[in-house]
Amino acid sequence: MQFHQNGFHPGDPRYSDPQDAVVAPPIKRPMPKEVDVLIVGCGPAGLNMAAQLSQFGNISVAIVDQKDDRLLVGQADGIACRTIEMFQAYGFADQIIQEGYQVNEAAFWKPDADKPFEIARSGKVADVADDLSEMPHLIINQARVHDEFLKVMQQSAIKLEPHYQRKLLSLEVGDASAEYPVTVQLERMVNFSQYSQEIETVKAKYVIGCDGARSAVRSAIGKELVGDPLNQAWGVMDILLNTDFPDIRLKSLIHSNNEGNMLIIPREGGYMVRMYVELDKLKENERVARDQMTAEVLIAAGNRILAPYSIDVKQVAWWSVYEIGQRITTAFDDSTDDRAARVFLAGDACHTHSPKAGQGLNTSVMDTWNLGWKLAHVLTGRADESLLTTYSAERREYGQALIDFDRKFSAMFSAKPKSAENPDGVDPAEFQRYFQLFGEYTAGVSIQYRPSIMVSDGIHQELATGLTVGKRFHSAPVVRQGDAKPVQLGHCHTANGAYRVYAFAGNAAPFSADCGVKALCHFLAEDAASPVKKYTPAGAEMDSIIDVRAVFQQHHQEVNTADIPAALAPLKGTLGLRDYEKVFCADNRPVSSGGGKDIYEMRGINREHGCIVIVRPDQYVAEVLPLNDYAGLSQFFAGVLK
Amino acid sequence: MQFHQNGFHPGDPRYSDPQDAVVAPPIKRPMPKEVDVLIVGCGPAGLNMAAQLSQFGNISVAIVDQKDDRLLVGQADGIACRTIEMFQAYGFADQIIQEGYQVNEAAFWKPDADKPFEIARSGKVADVADDLSEMPHLIINQARVHDEFLKVMQQSAIKLEPHYQRKLLSLEVGDASAEYPVTVQLERMVNFSQYSQEIETVKAKYVIGCDGARSAVRSAIGKELVGDPLNQAWGVMDILLNTDFPDIRLKSLIHSNNEGNMLIIPREGGYMVRMYVELDKLKENERVARDQMTAEVLIAAGNRILAPYSIDVKQVAWWSVYEIGQRITTAFDDSTDDRAARVFLAGDACHTHSPKAGQGLNTSVMDTWNLGWKLAHVLTGRADESLLTTYSAERREYGQALIDFDRKFSAMFSAKPKSAENPDGVDPAEFQRYFQLFGEYTAGVSIQYRPSIMVSDGIHQELATGLTVGKRFHSAPVVRQGDAKPVQLGHCHTANGAYRVYAFAGNAAPFSADCGVKALCHFLAEDAASPVKKYTPAGAEMDSIIDVRAVFQQHHQEVNTADIPAALAPLKGTLGLRDYEKVFCADNRPVSSGGGKDIYEMRGINREHGCIVIVRPDQYVAEVLPLNDYAGLSQFFAGVLK
Repeated sequence: MQFHQNGFHPGDPRYSDPQDAVVAPPIKRPMPKEVDVLIVGCGPAGLNMAAQLSQFGNISVAIVDQKDDRLLVGQADGIACRTIEMFQAYGFADQIIQEGYQVNEAAFWKPDADKPFEIARSGKVADVADDLSEMPHLIINQARVHDEFLKVMQQSAIKLEPHYQRKLLSLEVGDASAEYPVTVQLERMVNFSQYSQEIETVKAKYVIGCDGARSAVRSAIGKELVGDPLNQAWGVMDILLNTDFPDIRLKSLIHSNNEGNMLIIPREGGYMVRMYVELDKLKENERVARDQMTAEVLIAAGNRILAPYSIDVKQVAWWSVYEIGQRITTAFDDSTDDRAARVFLAGDACHTHSPKAGQGLNTSVMDTWNLGWKLAHVLTGRADESLLTTYSAERREYGQALIDFDRKFSAMFSAKPKSAENPDGVDPAEFQRYFQLFGEYTAGVSIQYRPSIMVSDGIHQELATGLTVGKRFHSAPVVRQGDAKPVQLGHCHTANGAYRVYAFAGNAAPFSADCGVKALCHFLAEDAASPVKKYTPAGAEMDSIIDVRAVFQQHHQEVNTADIPAALAPLKGTLGLRDYEKVFCADNRPVSSGGGKDIYEMRGINREHGCIVIVRPDQYVAEVLPLNDYAGLSQFFAGVLK
Repeated sequence: MQFHQNGFHPGDPRYSDPQDAVVAPPIKRPMPKEVDVLIVGCGPAGLNMAAQLSQFGNISVAIVDQKDDRLLVGQADGIACRTIEMFQAYGFADQIIQEGYQVNEAAFWKPDADKPFEIARSGKVADVADDLSEMPHLIINQARVHDEFLKVMQQSAIKLEPHYQRKLLSLEVGDASAEYPVTVQLERMVNFSQYSQEIETVKAKYVIGCDGARSAVRSAIGKELVGDPLNQAWGVMDILLNTDFPDIRLKSLIHSNNEGNMLIIPREGGYMVRMYVELDKLKENERVARDQMTAEVLIAAGNRILAPYSIDVKQVAWWSVYEIGQRITTAFDDSTDDRAARVFLAGDACHTHSPKAGQGLNTSVMDTWNLGWKLAHVLTGRADESLLTTYSAERREYGQALIDFDRKFSAMFSAKPKSAENPDGVDPAEFQRYFQLFGEYTAGVSIQYRPSIMVSDGIHQELATGLTVGKRFHSAPVVRQGDAKPVQLGHCHTANGAYRVYAFAGNAAPFSADCGVKALCHFLAEDAASPVKKYTPAGAEMDSIIDVRAVFQQHHQEVNTADIPAALAPLKGTLGLRDYEKVFCADNRPVSSGGGKDIYEMRGINREHGCIVIVRPDQYVAEVLPLNDYAGLSQFFAGVLK
């Protein structure tokens, strides 16, 4: 899609009249007096939390924000592959992919060896390695991601809409045995500053603080951000421009000799570009106080860094100065030795870091992606409250790792290029290698949660070497047996809070006497120890708690529909209709037909014996088991469901 | 996507509450007194016409329908690959693909050789051949396609919305020299039958009759449908069911021995199925008068045909009886020897046929896809009125060919299977072969318009053997040079009314002295004979009339952005921003990275010399020329633009 050629306008770019794209008044509903979950903050963390909770239908939720209305212009813009995988779970990956800029290549620039005061390209590399994810690395206005979350919330059974113009006045956690132990006072406000006298009181079972780096929720529970408060200052601007810099439509990392460094991120629509300009490297006499900084100063710095190239800026859509350090909260929740948590923090309320690796929005949504289903499981009685302790355990470690990564990446990025005068500088080739090395990290797919009640120690990992226990389920192409449709197996993982059990079959004929999947299905459907029988409440869909699916290595025409057992053919909905989408086969079609990507080979599945892969509701691999390890299967679910 | 498991509900399936999915009251605006184009009928032909015209911004349009509101439940459901290619031009292919059922395989069933009163599968074939189209063959409720057209119209610069509850009372074509020669009277109505006394008069430059088989517009201009008025009667039903028939999620063509024939089309959402049951084959005592037909009769017939399998119908979402013959209108417009056309017919107003090959909706949208841009070119002064004569010439021939195809296909489908007693019957294997043979036809990609002012005689066809003059531009993967993004070249063809000129380069180094593309760009930018200079009005975007793009066979990193000439780097929009999306390269990435599909090889482009391919605004190849045939290029455009 191409847009912004007439200047930047926020909102859905499909509208010819930009005015129509932003006029979408929210339905004004009264603030509820009691809710299961109150979410404070309509940023990515809060909206993802709300979207996730809205999928259950029987959890009451309110989400509030100080803002007057939905965001129109966002600061964050980089969407990692892993985050798009999560969007897929909500069904809006396609829409975002259509609209966003796709980062396919990164260009590296360093001082020209012959003309050290001009820059020269040192190389281009693929931004995303092959088979890192089925999803691209995207750049899109954060506000458009918000719009999609809002649509998911609005289309849900609880028809959730934010309550804007609410400022948190107080938060108190009372008697833990009360039904709604947390009491929150909110003040109605307009334009952030003109306060009305209207105070609303909301009682909640849980409160989630997604209210940013200056989180009022965090203050209310007595936690704070600790770490480096400030380090390098960077200017950032979204501009519409013409330039002779040749890589303006590629992500470009530029080290100049004396003028500082710059990061160029092309934006959605084909014309807009984001530039990050290092401000500490501005020459003494060009440094200005932050409150006197102007876009013109940033543009002038950009022109010096890019020499011999130049930029002719036609419009500045947005600009700002970042002076953000790497900090992390003293705790992710308000739990004490005596009391389980009732208040959780997520997103920037927990951790701040520099924007250059594009991790902010992604880490924020991944926080609540981790917390959302756990809270839902507790609220709907599926799991014990103790499940919630894993949120802090899993996300805190990752938050710290992110900060360590960011510190190293930022330092490297800001360092002077290595040269005769600067022997301690960074070798651009080394920086490029580091960039590639950390591709998996910045794509968001490297997270590996440690063993816990919901992550096994992986003693059977060799049965599926490419589906690492603790890491996200790495999707691969398969063919759906019922309708012969080529699909991504991972796209079964909708955001409905169910665990997935994948039964990868061994090499016996599908559903023959020797077929381990057949025996497993018999266990799941008939045995008293079957976790599906044990944990699925009466009246609930058979696949709503544990969703069982099978994968075969044979061609899809070799699996007979008549042989599929009941455990793989649940009867669904009020009409009790058979679900035909539980059985898959390796994509054995010829390469010329788009096939030839065998999931057994791609993910190292043991062909002879097959295996069971248990996947958490947030798409992380919880356990790999032998196909006949029914005890192990039962034991896993005994630890996480009740 | 899975839905309908709680019964069928119309509207956007993403809403949890089906009520929300259908409540979308249209903006009520007064009927304009004068319009450039009045479209009668909000079916696929009419909505596509409206959507196409809405893209220009300076054409006034009204579209009216007798219905009270937008369609919620449609009859047509099969969307051919070619039609999805057209949806892509409007930007809504992704949305429709996400929601629809994808036809990947077809199953054929015939009487069991051993048990002749039971059916047995005779084979399965791929429904769509490799590289027939980059788009799938889809099944989706026609109403959801309408919704997308309505969205395109509403998002356009003219913010077009239908005027419902309007019945055509009269249509008169007056003095052709008047600005608005056609006068139409419309009566306001409610619920199709309760007429108000309110009569509206609209004057139009052109009227398009898209008002179906009983078209009032057609009657008003004295034309009629001729051909076989009726032939076989078929019952059709959309049902939610359980069954032991194994191919229920595949398109299945079933010939029983004595109980007649059946076509099964799985529907979107994973549960619903459409069944076409042949009624003339019902046994004497089961035949019922059409007005006494019930869904139960159809279900009983279905059960007999499917023996030994059976269906357990849980809900009938919709059913009907088809008794439609193959007929074609006596003329596609109201032109006479003395007067150019002012009224055009499209869709079912022009041609009717049986529904089984799934051609109805597709042919209808392709009618107005052919007419829309031509009318826009005439109305915006780009082309002479004589251009409009090609509509009837091109679509009439295709309409007739469709009817001939339909007659043969229907007869084959309805024939008894060949057997000892029925030596004249149809051999199921032959039917299956016919089905495969005509795959290209039913996918909508076989249409080849005859030579005319806008289709050359193809004397240089050997320069691009896979881009046949007169056929639709067959897309292939390429990598966009500016941002290294893998894209489909054909997706450049948005529905904006521009001609495309593709300059496929020969094997000289990109933009070197020997590079033919460089010379062509010089001609286009500098020469007085350049059609781009000649036909682009002052103030219009440089690529709005003729959109020039280049394709190279080298790797995309071998093309230097600095070398790209002005003809391939237009300055766009009110800010004059450079467009970086005009240059492409063959996808030379390794197969493991998703590449390896070389457009030069796939489309038979001459590697040594390259070529020019001119593509019409409706995506049909108009001309193939040598890369240096500037005279041929100028000559082509002299025939179609002014």
